[in-house]
Amino acid sequence: MENTPLLMLGLPKGSLQDSTIKLFGKAGFNISVSSRSYRPSIDDEELDGRFVRAQEVSRYVEHGYFDCGLTGQDWVRENDSDVVEVCSLVYSRASNKRSKWIIAVPAASPVQTVKDLEGKRIATEVVNITRQYLKDNGVNAEVEFSWGATEVKVPDLVDAIVDLTETGNSIRANNLRIVDTLLYTNTVLIANKAAWENPAKRKKIESIAMLLQAALEANSKVGLKLNIEKSKLNDVLADLPALRNPTINRLTDEAWVAIDTIIDEKVVREIIPELKKRGAEGIIEYPLNKVVF
Amino acid sequence: MENTPLLMLGLPKGSLQDSTIKLFGKAGFNISVSSRSYRPSIDDEELDGRFVRAQEVSRYVEHGYFDCGLTGQDWVRENDSDVVEVCSLVYSRASNKRSKWIIAVPAASPVQTVKDLEGKRIATEVVNITRQYLKDNGVNAEVEFSWGATEVKVPDLVDAIVDLTETGNSIRANNLRIVDTLLYTNTVLIANKAAWENPAKRKKIESIAMLLQAALEANSKVGLKLNIEKSKLNDVLADLPALRNPTINRLTDEAWVAIDTIIDEKVVREIIPELKKRGAEGIIEYPLNKVVF
Amino acid sequence: MENTPLLMLGLPKGSLQDSTIKLFGKAGFNISVSSRSYRPSIDDEELDGRFVRAQEVSRYVEHGYFDCGLTGQDWVRENDSDVVEVCSLVYSRASNKRSKWIIAVPAASPVQTVKDLEGKRIATEVVNITRQYLKDNGVNAEVEFSWGATEVKVPDLVDAIVDLTETGNSIRANNLRIVDTLLYTNTVLIANKAAWENPAKRKKIESIAMLLQAALEANSKVGLKLNIEKSKLNDVLADLPALRNPTINRLTDEAWVAIDTIIDEKVVREIIPELKKRGAEGIIEYPLNKVVF
Amino acid sequence: MENTPLLMLGLPKGSLQDSTIKLFGKAGFNISVSSRSYRPSIDDEELDGRFVRAQEVSRYVEHGYFDCGLTGQDWVRENDSDVVEVCSLVYSRASNKRSKWIIAVPAASPVQTVKDLEGKRIATEVVNITRQYLKDNGVNAEVEFSWGATEVKVPDLVDAIVDLTETGNSIRANNLRIVDTLLYTNTVLIANKAAWENPAKRKKIESIAMLLQAALEANSKVGLKLNIEKSKLNDVLADLPALRNPTINRLTDEAWVAIDTIIDEKVVREIIPELKKRGAEGIIEYPLNKVVF
Amino acid sequence: MENTPLLMLGLPKGSLQDSTIKLFGKAGFNISVSSRSYRPSIDDEELDGRFVRAQEVSRYVEHGYFDCGLTGQDWVRENDSDVVEVCSLVYSRASNKRSKWIIAVPAASPVQTVKDLEGKRIATEVVNITRQYLKDNGVNAEVEFSWGATEVKVPDLVDAIVDLTETGNSIRANNLRIVDTLLYTNTVLIANKAAWENPAKRKKIESIAMLLQAALEANSKVGLKLNIEKSKLNDVLADLPALRNPTINRLTDEAWVAIDTIIDEKVVREIIPELKKRGAEGIIEYPLNKVVF
Amino acid sequence: MENTPLLMLGLPKGSLQDSTIKLFGKAGFNISVSSRSYRPSIDDEELDGRFVRAQEVSRYVEHGYFDCGLTGQDWVRENDSDVVEVCSLVYSRASNKRSKWIIAVPAASPVQTVKDLEGKRIATEVVNITRQYLKDNGVNAEVEFSWGATEVKVPDLVDAIVDLTETGNSIRANNLRIVDTLLYTNTVLIANKAAWENPAKRKKIESIAMLLQAALEANSKVGLKLNIEKSKLNDVLADLPALRNPTINRLTDEAWVAIDTIIDEKVVREIIPELKKRGAEGIIEYPLNKVVF
Repeated sequence: MENTPLLMLGLPKGSLQDSTIKLFGKAGFNISVSSRSYRPSIDDEELDGRFVRAQEVSRYVEHGYFDCGLTGQDWVRENDSDVVEVCSLVYSRASNKRSKWIIAVPAASPVQTVKDLEGKRIATEVVNITRQYLKDNGVNAEVEFSWGATEVKVPDLVDAIVDLTETGNSIRANNLRIVDTLLYTNTVLIANKAAWENPAKRKKIESIAMLLQAALEANSKVGLKLNIEKSKLNDVLADLPALRNPTINRLTDEAWVAIDTIIDEKVVREIIPELKKRGAEGIIEYPLNKVVF
Repeated sequence: MENTPLLMLGLPKGSLQDSTIKLFGKAGFNISVSSRSYRPSIDDEELDGRFVRAQEVSRYVEHGYFDCGLTGQDWVRENDSDVVEVCSLVYSRASNKRSKWIIAVPAASPVQTVKDLEGKRIATEVVNITRQYLKDNGVNAEVEFSWGATEVKVPDLVDAIVDLTETGNSIRANNLRIVDTLLYTNTVLIANKAAWENPAKRKKIESIAMLLQAALEANSKVGLKLNIEKSKLNDVLADLPALRNPTINRLTDEAWVAIDTIIDEKVVREIIPELKKRGAEGIIEYPLNKVVF
Repeated sequence: MENTPLLMLGLPKGSLQDSTIKLFGKAGFNISVSSRSYRPSIDDEELDGRFVRAQEVSRYVEHGYFDCGLTGQDWVRENDSDVVEVCSLVYSRASNKRSKWIIAVPAASPVQTVKDLEGKRIATEVVNITRQYLKDNGVNAEVEFSWGATEVKVPDLVDAIVDLTETGNSIRANNLRIVDTLLYTNTVLIANKAAWENPAKRKKIESIAMLLQAALEANSKVGLKLNIEKSKLNDVLADLPALRNPTINRLTDEAWVAIDTIIDEKVVREIIPELKKRGAEGIIEYPLNKVVF
Repeated sequence: MENTPLLMLGLPKGSLQDSTIKLFGKAGFNISVSSRSYRPSIDDEELDGRFVRAQEVSRYVEHGYFDCGLTGQDWVRENDSDVVEVCSLVYSRASNKRSKWIIAVPAASPVQTVKDLEGKRIATEVVNITRQYLKDNGVNAEVEFSWGATEVKVPDLVDAIVDLTETGNSIRANNLRIVDTLLYTNTVLIANKAAWENPAKRKKIESIAMLLQAALEANSKVGLKLNIEKSKLNDVLADLPALRNPTINRLTDEAWVAIDTIIDEKVVREIIPELKKRGAEGIIEYPLNKVVF
Repeated sequence: MENTPLLMLGLPKGSLQDSTIKLFGKAGFNISVSSRSYRPSIDDEELDGRFVRAQEVSRYVEHGYFDCGLTGQDWVRENDSDVVEVCSLVYSRASNKRSKWIIAVPAASPVQTVKDLEGKRIATEVVNITRQYLKDNGVNAEVEFSWGATEVKVPDLVDAIVDLTETGNSIRANNLRIVDTLLYTNTVLIANKAAWENPAKRKKIESIAMLLQAALEANSKVGLKLNIEKSKLNDVLADLPALRNPTINRLTDEAWVAIDTIIDEKVVREIIPELKKRGAEGIIEYPLNKVVF
Repeated sequence: MENTPLLMLGLPKGSLQDSTIKLFGKAGFNISVSSRSYRPSIDDEELDGRFVRAQEVSRYVEHGYFDCGLTGQDWVRENDSDVVEVCSLVYSRASNKRSKWIIAVPAASPVQTVKDLEGKRIATEVVNITRQYLKDNGVNAEVEFSWGATEVKVPDLVDAIVDLTETGNSIRANNLRIVDTLLYTNTVLIANKAAWENPAKRKKIESIAMLLQAALEANSKVGLKLNIEKSKLNDVLADLPALRNPTINRLTDEAWVAIDTIIDEKVVREIIPELKKRGAEGIIEYPLNKVVF
């Protein structure tokens, strides 16, 4: 009764679920899920999908149950999954900060470098990454799997932890010290190798990648329009490189031109006062849904 | 102290209240209500309004207490109200699905067609619509008024129900089977007949109708701008009819033009990859508040 | 470790806190506060700030702890603070209603005018403003400070109250009658006198003022685009002064032009029906983030 | 697969639902309902039940779908149902206040007595009770069915309302005046006439009635224990009839006795100070789950 | 229409409101308030009451609007109210900790004793208490009224604060150091002096005091029953003084006795294992509502 | 500054956390946790504790970091921990249902017995228990660790799952069929082997066990008192064995006796009507906090 969809997507359940649905929505794909369900409804006949734990997405992309999926680079590596990494998707480009897996010890611990972990006990959710890291550093230590809340286990239960941190707040709140960084990670779109070789599937995956990136790009950009005297135009464009390649239109008053361009939202608060000082008029900033350069 | 407003609006209380306030807001009329109040404040001196149950709006429009009002077509018909139907307002054009009143029986019931309801007992919130439907089909059955939660009354309390359904979820959840559809319904703007003959009132009602429709239209449309080589312009416009009649501006680089147009949000995910493939640059999508073609 | 910021901002805690954070965000400054904290984090190295009660901002701006601050005109006057009023910031320009301090009595009270308050007892949060008002009217009355919930104190505890009201709802709900209005008030940006004489600080304060006003201005403005026959252009512009100085572009169909302009959101509901009547096509309204004329 | 239960109970959905489930729980019957369901699960194999609107319970008890049910006396009368009223169950005996249906008009209305309603329009949820009341008073008036929120309909939509009130708060909040009381009402346990004649069913209904009443009784009763000199015992029992038939135990100190009894919670605040004055010691009050005299 | 009640109670609005209503309920007086109302309904015809800010209760008790009231000792003293303090009511006897007003400075401040505050600026909600304290210590300092959130005002806005603390958490969270304690405080029942001289009113106030204290006492006590061999009774009572004066009953088995007594909840976890070891059987602990020794 | 506590407790974080805190509270130990903390505060100087994931409690009890702990029997076995099982604690004795780990397949799967799993893929959170079970049955199958939401993985991702179920609701909701039960489980109190050999620690662990069991026992028991004619006593006790060994007191009326006993709450609804029929008077049921037989 149902058609077979072209692509099966693996979507990350849990902390990334809401932001993933929102990102797809902005990209033009409406994903709706009833609570407790893992089978979403997607308004594109070529797509079907499932929500599974982020930790498990790459396993099922590799096995071919999913044609492509969203997950963290960290879990692709922890699972040692043989998949194609299509593109990175840093959900919040404004901060431009990626999360990282770090090895941490109590602030007062004698451990200063990875070498000092010889013979110690380490708790982590990423047992394989941690074991490889220790091996690369020629260190023997006991690595035990942690079911979560890893940061509270030192110093009582273990000597060190390998945990994920974005802002470092949790590290500081538990009075820990970072010894080393094992891995930077962000969300990635990955594809099954056979699906990537299939032209129809690959074209669809690339379209999805472009639209997701266009939606992310628009988060940190705004549109800016203004009118300025034609005689001042060249100086303004030379002095304000943030304005990039604007669309320039003639106005009925031939001495003035209208500029329409896309700029980083972060520089607006510098640019507007400067433009006003140089005599710009009718300056407006407007929001964007998608940007593709 | 207060002026007499030109128009008195009847607004639907309950499940439609929030979406109605939002729609009027997008159309340019800010309606504010304190909780538990039924007297909203509207920022247009020509308008006053009241929130009443959707079931009762048409009654008070007919009697002239309201000059116009928003309600469902179903309740206009159930009340047999003698009013002018100004326009339909399908709140969610994306789905394009209207609600419908259906007659349903338990999945295992022997009833297969309306004829099989002869002598049966039927519960519904729309007694008049149901009686007329049975009469039209030459069926004698007992119709009783239901205070709500009608769908749980079969099979214990009655033999069949006439109930409203949008998605059919409630029908399935209660293990019912639809026998027939009595009526499709959506929200309508209705007017009192005398008010409609009064030129000043009619002009105002028509303005409101146009603005509500413009706001609804914008829900499914977006603005799209892009730059493309002038030499490719004709082919693009010919191959992508969704771009419709775009505004085309010359740029400082004479070999390129800037396109600005309005398209269905649903086709953006097809159009952007295609435009990119044909060499378009600086593609942006921006949101709209109102659209009037 | 931290640089000394150029400017210290006084921000109003309490009912204005969320809307102030939102306004600064729209102006381009992201203020984040952990709950219960009064030290916000601001993403501009030149700025630091503190949240204090709106009642106290002007006191600390005058004393020089803050270089500038946001508060109500009422509290500047109640505190009799010697500060520079940089600009008004009416958060909700749409309603254009400012709050006011009124003197109210029970609906059934014999008090009709301020003169009838001779010898009575009055509770209020603004003792100084109230005393000055009574003095200006030659009335002797006992004014007592109220910790809040002033409106429920009459008639049991006092004879009259001086209280803040925006919509009058609370006045009506407590069955009170307004005798007189003492003061209209809205939010203002104020500066310390010495800071205002410091060129670097003054330039920064003026930038902030411009961007806050640009963000507020955008709340009540929208972008409007439309196509119209060139032959009708002059009449339309002459008859609809709200369209102001539009950007006018030629279209591929030489008989038509495209208009792009900024107008008050309040007039859109008048303008669109009029434009449609005059043959305009492709009318769209789009949202704005900032507007600087 | 399921046995046919001995009794089918009609339970009131809506505002009474939670307190009904709690009362049955205290009586020893655990009723669990999944949200949105009307088929509860009851931990007694002899019982099955359904939640329906309180307005409809008596109708279905009369028809025999339910053997017994809980509903308001008002709805039994509005529906003119021919059923057995087994016992009253005043859920909150502490206040001893029953709800009442009153006729109300705007505070400023000229209507002073029921006679002044001649020719007026009245909105109510209890059309039959209202019509009978008017007829009994020889008044002709138009009675229209109201879907709810009746109290906001005067004076714009109707001249008077007949509405339910417990505390009168809503009446005052809407600035209404009560003209007359039509009916006092409380919850009742009712039985189908045939079920009542069936000995097995009647025995079960009487057990349920006893346990519900025992649980309600315990709401307003507490246990009281105290020690008192034997010589004062007779005077205390004579002067404090509220102590009723206490259990009296000898203590190791032969000059004292221990008293254990059940009293109205309402009189505890009178009794304890009196007992203390007469030299009682070790006075304790303890809570009860059920009381059967 | 309403009777004049014997006593008018002043009840504390705000943070103490819910616990006060609960305490009166346990004492036998049901107080109900609709949200936003300050006129409660009390189920005792001799009582009426009002909820006002705790800071203002003693003022209106002194003036005679209230006959008695609940408030903090601190506010009685801050207001310098001439009232009778009937009894203390430490709401949480388990912790036995009273709140205190302390003077605090930043952890790094040079201020070590009250003497070091000479010439400093201090913010507080209790201006009078603070001024008296400074005068008693021969210190001149500027005391300013704080509208709240006092703890965040140092060191930026003032040099020191006088603030209320129960656990010291807020002091620590703001990195402050306590210099001195000005005042310990707990809730008190206070009476108007004239009311206290009126025998009928005084008797009622004393009854209320006894019942409130009995309810508080029961929070930390439980009932304990057990059976034990008569031959072991004396040793058990000698070794376990916590059992106090139990009621001892003979059982049908003459070799055993039943004990019923009241003990501190805190010692139950020591007593039960000890009793079990000594051969006690049928040990049960039951809850209490009120205890008067 | 802090004393070393006698015992360190391991407490289960997550779904069992709130009910564990409540159970300890009823047993007489108040455990308070600030949000996000894993170090609770316990009002017993001999105790300290930590909240860790239930899956990890037995590992750290075995290693000696905890002296005793609460966890599920399933995790003791999955971790193959060498600890002492002190007692079972079925949190909800009323239902008397323990949770169980079952192996389930899609309703339509050809798998009928464990033998049919040969060569299949199975997802589970209990990899060791599952591997042992398969080995015991001579079956070779691939077992993969599941991070959660295991029940939605069949049939798409794996052939079968081993998952925990209490009511079977989730099994039915996902249209699965149970093939076999691997393990019944409930909460247990476990002790470290060395701690159990230490007399002081063992005594404390046994006290905690007794008090936790006493609190659990009281959940399903109530106190029952009644008066009955002495002549009927023997028959009543013979016919109603649920009354067990009651305390029987003589009353002032020598023909009657007072009975006080503890019975299962479940039988109250049968016993009370029966007692009433036999002439019992003054029947009351009262609640219990703890019961030790």
